[in-house]
Amino acid sequence: MKTYLDCIPCFVQQALRAGRAATEDEAELKLLLDRIGSRIRDIPLDHTPPEMGLIIYDEIAKITGNSDPYRSHKARHITEAKRLLPSLRQAVRRSCDPLETALRIAIAGNVIDLGMDKEFHIEKDMQLILRQEFAIYDADAFRQVLSRTKEVLYLGDNAGESVFDRVLIEALRKPVTYVVRAQPIINDVTEEDARASGLQEVAEILSSGSPAPATLLSYCTPEFIARFESAQMIISKGQGNYEGLSGTDRPVFFLLKAKCPLIARDLGVEENAIVMKYAGNKGE
Amino acid sequence: MKTYLDCIPCFVQQALRAGRAATEDEAELKLLLDRIGSRIRDIPLDHTPPEMGLIIYDEIAKITGNSDPYRSHKARHITEAKRLLPSLRQAVRRSCDPLETALRIAIAGNVIDLGMDKEFHIEKDMQLILRQEFAIYDADAFRQVLSRTKEVLYLGDNAGESVFDRVLIEALRKPVTYVVRAQPIINDVTEEDARASGLQEVAEILSSGSPAPATLLSYCTPEFIARFESAQMIISKGQGNYEGLSGTDRPVFFLLKAKCPLIARDLGVEENAIVMKYAGNKGE
Repeated sequence: MKTYLDCIPCFVQQALRAGRAATEDEAELKLLLDRIGSRIRDIPLDHTPPEMGLIIYDEIAKITGNSDPYRSHKARHITEAKRLLPSLRQAVRRSCDPLETALRIAIAGNVIDLGMDKEFHIEKDMQLILRQEFAIYDADAFRQVLSRTKEVLYLGDNAGESVFDRVLIEALRKPVTYVVRAQPIINDVTEEDARASGLQEVAEILSSGSPAPATLLSYCTPEFIARFESAQMIISKGQGNYEGLSGTDRPVFFLLKAKCPLIARDLGVEENAIVMKYAGNKGE
Repeated sequence: MKTYLDCIPCFVQQALRAGRAATEDEAELKLLLDRIGSRIRDIPLDHTPPEMGLIIYDEIAKITGNSDPYRSHKARHITEAKRLLPSLRQAVRRSCDPLETALRIAIAGNVIDLGMDKEFHIEKDMQLILRQEFAIYDADAFRQVLSRTKEVLYLGDNAGESVFDRVLIEALRKPVTYVVRAQPIINDVTEEDARASGLQEVAEILSSGSPAPATLLSYCTPEFIARFESAQMIISKGQGNYEGLSGTDRPVFFLLKAKCPLIARDLGVEENAIVMKYAGNKGE
């Protein structure tokens, strides 16, 4: 997805919010905003929005020395989500359509997003999402592609959400590779977070190599790119991965809650819609 | 009022909104945001927020050639407000406290503010404000200072709001000088707008000399400053004038709706509160 003009004020807002998670020093925060402002010109509109995320967290680390401002938030969200795990699994077991319930649970986990200026209440939001109508729901394609594939490449998004991903991974009943960011950025899931979420028990964990809050192929390792290019089925969680990969022709299923109005517009859905969109290889 | 860190993303948002009123060209709008971003460093936090307003409109004019992007909005708001004038005057005449009703009407006009990202519905908002509790209401001081003063210096804010100001000016029953901006900025009232609002029929119209969306004394003419320094009673309308003059010790009554959360916090009131706050010379 390209960068929209409306993304730009939002970048500055996000820089301030993330900066405040790293420091309370007003002079440091002003310096951060001065620098982010002066780097707006480095982001042409044909770049994807997560490329600015990289710049923001790079400047925060340089100014404050803190390269993981949301570290404690991530640990807390993982702990909270793990507490819900038994009831999430029970919801899948009791469902007359366990796969759809697991998909909904994975989307519900996507509300845990510190890149957005939105409050979330994970248990309440989950109850709503379990009943919410999908705005895009390519379920037939999903079941078809899943039945044929040997394995699934699963692109994780946020820490905490990762525990909800575990529920979907268990329901897929295929070997899964769970892909994480190369380093901490926003509250995106890293290898450490994935392990704290227990994902090594149900999947192989692999870093994409992307340090951005998205799977940006230009930053990914050759190993990941080879896996991505040859995968028969890819599940892509969340807005950042959609922003980075929306132009792909690979067999990607985008699974997300459209919290950002511009991403919603790009998808052709209402803000806060839930989506499972099949992106590629429709002719296969 | 100082510039808060939270003002900075809002500046970028405001630049985009105002830029869009001047041009639809995406490349020009991106250039505008590039330039505004790079000038964040020129606004230390001890400057007042309206100083960034000057920079924004200066860049819009340079890039698009349009130095008055809200010209047609202003004309429309003045026409709409003039249509309401008979009913506004009737509300004052029928009130058991005509001065308070006129004060409320003048505050109601303050919703016509294109510097804010808030929708307004002037007739509906007015009905609400006529009944809304004041968060700060220095009415005794207002009546006392008004009874003693020979004349009133009235600092206008927005075009359209200017028509509502006329109702208060008529209720003051003192000679009034109505102060306008030196040039178009946002939808602030200029001499041309004041005349279109009919204010020359009830007041002397005077430019402060300030090209900013506020009465910034460092930009004002010596004539205005002399009038400001010697005035026995000053009515200051709106947020911009508050931002520019909140530190004054002159006998200023700030009359506004606190639409911005930071101005509300600075005043110690809730967002959307209505306020008439006496600022200076309390000991007189």
